[in-house]
Amino acid sequence: MTCDQERLVIETEFPVRYAETDAMGVVHHAAYLVYFEEGRSQFMRDIGSDYANIEAECYRLPVTELGVRYAGSLSYGERVKIRTWVEETRSRRITFAYQVIGSQTGAILVSGFTRHIWTDSNGRVARAPDNWSQLFNAAG
Amino acid sequence: MTCDQERLVIETEFPVRYAETDAMGVVHHAAYLVYFEEGRSQFMRDIGSDYANIEAECYRLPVTELGVRYAGSLSYGERVKIRTWVEETRSRRITFAYQVIGSQTGAILVSGFTRHIWTDSNGRVARAPDNWSQLFNAAG
Amino acid sequence: MTCDQERLVIETEFPVRYAETDAMGVVHHAAYLVYFEEGRSQFMRDIGSDYANIEAECYRLPVTELGVRYAGSLSYGERVKIRTWVEETRSRRITFAYQVIGSQTGAILVSGFTRHIWTDSNGRVARAPDNWSQLFNAAG
Amino acid sequence: MTCDQERLVIETEFPVRYAETDAMGVVHHAAYLVYFEEGRSQFMRDIGSDYANIEAECYRLPVTELGVRYAGSLSYGERVKIRTWVEETRSRRITFAYQVIGSQTGAILVSGFTRHIWTDSNGRVARAPDNWSQLFNAAG
Repeated sequence: MTCDQERLVIETEFPVRYAETDAMGVVHHAAYLVYFEEGRSQFMRDIGSDYANIEAECYRLPVTELGVRYAGSLSYGERVKIRTWVEETRSRRITFAYQVIGSQTGAILVSGFTRHIWTDSNGRVARAPDNWSQLFNAAG
Repeated sequence: MTCDQERLVIETEFPVRYAETDAMGVVHHAAYLVYFEEGRSQFMRDIGSDYANIEAECYRLPVTELGVRYAGSLSYGERVKIRTWVEETRSRRITFAYQVIGSQTGAILVSGFTRHIWTDSNGRVARAPDNWSQLFNAAG
Repeated sequence: MTCDQERLVIETEFPVRYAETDAMGVVHHAAYLVYFEEGRSQFMRDIGSDYANIEAECYRLPVTELGVRYAGSLSYGERVKIRTWVEETRSRRITFAYQVIGSQTGAILVSGFTRHIWTDSNGRVARAPDNWSQLFNAAG
Repeated sequence: MTCDQERLVIETEFPVRYAETDAMGVVHHAAYLVYFEEGRSQFMRDIGSDYANIEAECYRLPVTELGVRYAGSLSYGERVKIRTWVEETRSRRITFAYQVIGSQTGAILVSGFTRHIWTDSNGRVARAPDNWSQLFNAAG
């Protein structure tokens, strides 16, 4: 957990899974969205806003937009090292940003963002509840 | 759709997806469970018991046991050809069996079964509802 | 297969798989990248440039960038209907665009693009081989 | 890392990923095969036989058979806790066994095995190389 100009950046690390590789011998491009999700999950657990609790309070944070750039790749036997931070918070939406880092070189292999809207459990757009809003604003 | 000694056998076919391959260059072993699920889904649609309808009536069919044998493999560029049938029906459970067939050779590449119990939407074991029970018994 | 202002648009259709849904009850956002890949695979098969053949000739088309917008969602029981076309071709790269369409409403649920570079089988950037280049230029 | 009657049992633990859940609200049954694979990967890393090294020496350990029993389920917000051990080693094959444990109750939620054969990188059945054979025999 480090701070980048007042902004909280969470680093999460775990091994590449064999099932995530494809016939090119490296991690399939779609798997990085699951890595982002793990980075985001860990970020939320770390600041005390576990997404499981958000769902338990009948809110949802579906993805409305995302973008990814791939400059390198990971193979089985390597570790996924991912940095996650809050790029922007608004009353009804939140944007997370991510960097997947080569564990040996420190180079940025993959970077991206996911934008989410706050909805109730029926999918209707909602304002972020105050408790979560404060946690995310403090971190962003 | 063919009949094997009075038993209904449904054949489903679709292309191997690149995301399903792994660094060995062939389809990852866990992907065959998703193929089985597709075979089972198509079987149920074909006999008029679409699993989406089963869920809409507040029943579930979770997997309680499964087994798979792998004698061969599939690669990207090939088609998945899968045969599905009902191996056994009981008042509270149902067993499906599957064969994945080489589309050129006709050889059995992968075979397996999945056993399911009937539950309500809260996960409590239940008797199969009569309408579905009749459809499965007729096919099994 | 339709033409949109001289541009070839391929429509592919297949059922939502249960494994692709998540605890929100709808298809997980990462699954759409696999749908895009299926749309792209079918596009390439249809114009005679099966990606399996591209790999057999020791070329690769890894993804270097992608973007997705989500305006709606799909559930188990529905069909994925996806339109794929070539957005741009260059000597060393190619961009595909996609729309996932609601099979009943015809509304655009999810749209996106994937950008790819041509490489050899060792990952070195390469010019598109002439035979594939002509096929993609004719379609784009 | 514990020993069960001279047999080495490795415990691995990581969070459930949202992408692994399905519309029933719990982890999809196929995801447990990926959990098993992670347990097996960690087991091999721990005894000094990282599967990445096995592949680097041009051996493979494809799955030839597997079985799973499901007595419970995991949800997002919970942790996967998995025990892995070697059930049997032969000159040309190896069998791993697994238990997924409820992190709060300690109950066995899911148990299973995977059987593997040793092959060379072209898929031809081979004897286990001596160095790996000794490591697995010592652990089994």
